[in-house]
Amino acid sequence: MGEFKVIGKGVVRTDAIDKVTGRAIYTADLTFPRMIYGAFVRSPYAHARIKRIDTSKAWKVPGVVAIITQEQLSKDYALVVEEEVHAAERVRRLLAGDKVRYYGEKVALVGAETLEAAKEAASLVEVEYEPLPAVTDPREAIKEGAPLIWEDREPVRGPNGELLYNVVSESHHEEGNVEQGFAESDYIFEDEFYVHRVHQTYLEPQAAIASVDEKGRITVWTSTQGIFAVRSNIARSLGLPLSHINVVGMTIGGGFGAKFGGIVDIYAVLLALFTRRPAKIVYSREEDFLDASPAPGLYVRIKTGVKRDGTIVARYVYALWDVGVGGGSLWATGAFARLYKTPHIKWDAYEVATNTPPVGAYRAPGYPQILFAGETQLNKIASELGIDPVELRLKNLKDEPGFKETLLTVAEKSNWFNREKGENEGWGIAMGWWQNASSPAAVFVSVHEDGSVKVFCGLMDLTGTETAVSQIIAETLGVRYEDVTFVRGDTDSAPFAPPSGGSTVTFSVGNAAKSAAEDALRQILEVAANQLEVKVEDLEWGDKRVWVKDDPERSLSYAEIARAAMRSEIGPIVGKGTFSAKPSDPNAFAQAVKVRVDEETGEITVLESIQALDVGRAINPILCEGQTEGGTTQSISWATMEEMKHDEQGRMINPNLADYQIPTIADVPSKVQVSLLEFPSKHGPYGAKGIGEPPITAGLAAVVSAVADATKLWVHEVPVTPERLILAMEQSKVGV
Amino acid sequence: MGEFKVIGKGVVRTDAIDKVTGRAIYTADLTFPRMIYGAFVRSPYAHARIKRIDTSKAWKVPGVVAIITQEQLSKDYALVVEEEVHAAERVRRLLAGDKVRYYGEKVALVGAETLEAAKEAASLVEVEYEPLPAVTDPREAIKEGAPLIWEDREPVRGPNGELLYNVVSESHHEEGNVEQGFAESDYIFEDEFYVHRVHQTYLEPQAAIASVDEKGRITVWTSTQGIFAVRSNIARSLGLPLSHINVVGMTIGGGFGAKFGGIVDIYAVLLALFTRRPAKIVYSREEDFLDASPAPGLYVRIKTGVKRDGTIVARYVYALWDVGVGGGSLWATGAFARLYKTPHIKWDAYEVATNTPPVGAYRAPGYPQILFAGETQLNKIASELGIDPVELRLKNLKDEPGFKETLLTVAEKSNWFNREKGENEGWGIAMGWWQNASSPAAVFVSVHEDGSVKVFCGLMDLTGTETAVSQIIAETLGVRYEDVTFVRGDTDSAPFAPPSGGSTVTFSVGNAAKSAAEDALRQILEVAANQLEVKVEDLEWGDKRVWVKDDPERSLSYAEIARAAMRSEIGPIVGKGTFSAKPSDPNAFAQAVKVRVDEETGEITVLESIQALDVGRAINPILCEGQTEGGTTQSISWATMEEMKHDEQGRMINPNLADYQIPTIADVPSKVQVSLLEFPSKHGPYGAKGIGEPPITAGLAAVVSAVADATKLWVHEVPVTPERLILAMEQSKVGV
Repeated sequence: MGEFKVIGKGVVRTDAIDKVTGRAIYTADLTFPRMIYGAFVRSPYAHARIKRIDTSKAWKVPGVVAIITQEQLSKDYALVVEEEVHAAERVRRLLAGDKVRYYGEKVALVGAETLEAAKEAASLVEVEYEPLPAVTDPREAIKEGAPLIWEDREPVRGPNGELLYNVVSESHHEEGNVEQGFAESDYIFEDEFYVHRVHQTYLEPQAAIASVDEKGRITVWTSTQGIFAVRSNIARSLGLPLSHINVVGMTIGGGFGAKFGGIVDIYAVLLALFTRRPAKIVYSREEDFLDASPAPGLYVRIKTGVKRDGTIVARYVYALWDVGVGGGSLWATGAFARLYKTPHIKWDAYEVATNTPPVGAYRAPGYPQILFAGETQLNKIASELGIDPVELRLKNLKDEPGFKETLLTVAEKSNWFNREKGENEGWGIAMGWWQNASSPAAVFVSVHEDGSVKVFCGLMDLTGTETAVSQIIAETLGVRYEDVTFVRGDTDSAPFAPPSGGSTVTFSVGNAAKSAAEDALRQILEVAANQLEVKVEDLEWGDKRVWVKDDPERSLSYAEIARAAMRSEIGPIVGKGTFSAKPSDPNAFAQAVKVRVDEETGEITVLESIQALDVGRAINPILCEGQTEGGTTQSISWATMEEMKHDEQGRMINPNLADYQIPTIADVPSKVQVSLLEFPSKHGPYGAKGIGEPPITAGLAAVVSAVADATKLWVHEVPVTPERLILAMEQSKVGV
Repeated sequence: MGEFKVIGKGVVRTDAIDKVTGRAIYTADLTFPRMIYGAFVRSPYAHARIKRIDTSKAWKVPGVVAIITQEQLSKDYALVVEEEVHAAERVRRLLAGDKVRYYGEKVALVGAETLEAAKEAASLVEVEYEPLPAVTDPREAIKEGAPLIWEDREPVRGPNGELLYNVVSESHHEEGNVEQGFAESDYIFEDEFYVHRVHQTYLEPQAAIASVDEKGRITVWTSTQGIFAVRSNIARSLGLPLSHINVVGMTIGGGFGAKFGGIVDIYAVLLALFTRRPAKIVYSREEDFLDASPAPGLYVRIKTGVKRDGTIVARYVYALWDVGVGGGSLWATGAFARLYKTPHIKWDAYEVATNTPPVGAYRAPGYPQILFAGETQLNKIASELGIDPVELRLKNLKDEPGFKETLLTVAEKSNWFNREKGENEGWGIAMGWWQNASSPAAVFVSVHEDGSVKVFCGLMDLTGTETAVSQIIAETLGVRYEDVTFVRGDTDSAPFAPPSGGSTVTFSVGNAAKSAAEDALRQILEVAANQLEVKVEDLEWGDKRVWVKDDPERSLSYAEIARAAMRSEIGPIVGKGTFSAKPSDPNAFAQAVKVRVDEETGEITVLESIQALDVGRAINPILCEGQTEGGTTQSISWATMEEMKHDEQGRMINPNLADYQIPTIADVPSKVQVSLLEFPSKHGPYGAKGIGEPPITAGLAAVVSAVADATKLWVHEVPVTPERLILAMEQSKVGV
């Protein structure tokens, strides 16, 4: 990497100083004249019929300016929207109408002069419910007699012709012939796994402010991963013209997939439309737990046929995704099948509705869950066959860049083949991956009269992507990182940028940025060639200068060139770069963990986490390491502590950070070692691949396998909480 | 113009609704947490030595946080600026040091928690002055013995070898040989003219707010005609890196040339640097009069040699520009020489310092003054020779597009050759012009998924230029005007745009915008060709659709194309357009006015104003007419009422809108008729030319000539106030 001057350096993040000095402005920090505050009336039942809503007492609270119910919405929405709304229809399910389907569901929206008044009024809205039985586990929900979430939905036929209830969508796939594959196998393993729902637990709760002007133009300030995604979402949900909505992305305090819009933004817009005042909605932590969009739970039955030597012949997955009242999780099912040569593969996957909030994306959506099943089972097979799990994988891994190397790096760094462990300690290893897909993106780059560079686009930065993109531009243009200022636009001003999710933006926006920088560089060289009276081919550049190859004394600074450009045919030096779809170019991840299990309390301590990630090209190694550490920490806590729990009536019982545990620094392994491998992507900017998702994809299996190594007990349900582990150990002792 | 769909239509201005509903946000409307207010200590003398400044009493006012004098600036500036300031030197003349040179000059700057505290403290700063004699008239200032504004400046030699004092710069030019020209002339006319200083009297006083962040990055919100000009100005004045300054242009309430920065912005930045708090400075009307940058006064001696038939042979101008303590007015001197074939031309022009504030630009800077002399003299010559002034001009006008036609149009519309007038009434006619120059500019255009269009650039809109540019884009792209949203960036986000002045922006930004729209259109057609499986050449487009020429049923909407682009190699549809220098392509203006003179009071009533302007192409005829009416109104009031007056001590005596008269609706001619002529510019977008400046360039001469027609008296000094006219009439009666 000696060839690079800016890429590969751990420069300070563009947002570091603003964040550590408290200067960064979050949505909740904003206030506007005449602003009102929104609060929701929420269902105290997971499942109930609404008989009657009485807002009369609530209206008496001083300062209340709006109380919106679904009935009023259906009736009055067309009146508050000035333009022809093709889609007053669209607003038909923004609030619970005749039925609530999960605990905490929105029943009414109150707007008032103060947050206190809004909350008080919300508490005074009288709703008469007729409670119904609820179901929160997809394994129960598919059964005959289970409460029906969507009344008019017919049961579907399962793989064996059985009836499956509450299924909202399904996916079936077969390559080769698994029946034949299993017939050809020497051994067949079949296991069941269950992964509980977890919440993204971003630091900053959901927040949005909306205002509507005299022309009906809407502005939304919000905490989001993607301003263009929020815009589309509002336009679609509220039947409004896209061009009348401007979305301003504020500093975001974490998202992990849960901030693409739809949770608070459209309600802020509704309040603004009804009252013609700026309206602010900021969730409490409890509301985030009860009514945001957590990761789906997953039940998997997985069957794998192998040859005597461990060669995989066939794999079959039966999956039930717990999607609550939402959907959109099916697509990840196939992730178990990507890393290994598997002649025969099949899956039957179902999304099952439960009386829980709609699920959403969470870092590598669905991958941790499905790979937990696939990778844990591989380790179990290795154990049963007496083959080392690394050897088993090497035998089966596809021959693609970085697949074996990440695994071998982790084996080497963890001293896997001579690994040491004490009493009650164990090691586990697993692999993960990500598809590394791309999205359309556009970036503008301007070179100013002092040679400084401004980048303008609509990227929302959660993880340091502004920094990485700035480094790509600095490298391409031949300037210092410090010369580049990154400026974020809103949807009115910025060209399209994809939402920051799915590890796509350094790849996609980075590519657009590189192309914009190249466009600007072409102009710089053209002006310099004219000024120096040579051909562009005779020029070299770097350090904000251009010089004649054979006569370096003849040179011009970028500042001089930018000023000369103004007087030339070129005009201001501005580069434009766009990017669109490129084929997926997967990157592999491997992780080994060492755990200690307290036999008495069931507590699991993860002592070491050794991981290797193919980053394609480490644009900023410090940020790559940070991403990797963050993702593995989340996977370890999912494996050991995080879980959204419900009581028998379907009410979430731990909607707060006291009862819903996330790791503190004390829960992070004392030894964490990250190796960054560089197998450059054919399509990524300077070979970079998306790196945010992969680090979360292997930890569940690695931890559970390490626990098995320590306890000789394979737990099939995560998180492996102390209670669950003790119970499993006790059950195994009595031979259950 | 039937070929156009959007151009040539009088669409509603983009800023109309915000302005008429009071929603538009001006700089003074903004407040920031911890913001402080700035107030100045100003000189009560036009010329004095400063012996001592005592701030001790001022510091005792509660809420005062900064009192900055020049002494402190020189001492401490390097301390408050974090980076290496090459130019602490630069701040050496931001406040009066040992001397004040005009009445109202800034002596100290106070910052306080409230404006009241800042003003009170400013009033308590004790300054001991030693008054010096002052001079405010350039005719006096050049004389030996006049007070010297810049002590160390040596006198220069005038055209006849005489010594000229207080000259700060000079310009000399000769084409042909005027001596020979005068020798060949049948008649020689020589006249003296004097034009008094006027103020731009924009509605919104000068205003700026500055803040500095932890990284030393400066943001300035300001009322300006050009955000990039303000940025350069701050960087240069304060020795700061350009890249650390971001300028946000707020809605502007008029500028007319006076808002390119330097008056309040750098002082707001100083306060912010010294206090690390946001700092706001808003001028009172009095401060605007005393310490902004009005139009220069001008003394002209003009000598013209003609043949018996009126053919111009030679012209010579001796000009003294009254630049106060500023400069920058010389260049306009040659404007008198552009319209007419003149074999021999010469000028000697001087900028003369006086004890008045530095002058600046005011609509067609310098042209009204110099053309007043040139055009009034032509009318006088016509009168002396008994040639009709229109005939005299037709004989001499250059054969360039629009020159004769504007004149003939005015002659026709005013029924010039059979014009009617009553008692004490008179007609005057004159011509003006503007150079129609260009500036570098860049514009981005994005086509969004609903087919709507966003324009992004750094243009400041004073006169409807956003509207005109939007029309150019709509026309070029084949969308409706309503589909285009214009978004203004700040200097960090937007590509370079020139300041809105000199009638350059519709021309320059319009060209860049057209080119950006063409870039976007190319992408639209490429995607459509791919989708429809035809060649680009086989396509036609309009009304937000593309169709196959021979099979119009096969078509795609721009919305469909924009979405398809996202999935194609093109990516998001974004167009980039840049523009730079093109040769000047002058446009002519002609104006005839009819006046009535009250012989007793000396009051002049302008009854009719008939004007014709070559606009090249009327992008928006209503805006073109508005510009023309506005410019002529200003010229009429300059001719009859506007004047900055000083007493003998050099103190401005009418720094308010009661004593400094600007026209009310009652002062506007009851008949105003505008003809727009279209002689397309070779270089302008769709042939458009800059139109803001020309309408002010002819009115002074037209009015004074009409007064002469009514009174048989040629007044050589404007404004022709009632006092001045009565005095002239009385003097003429006694034969003075």
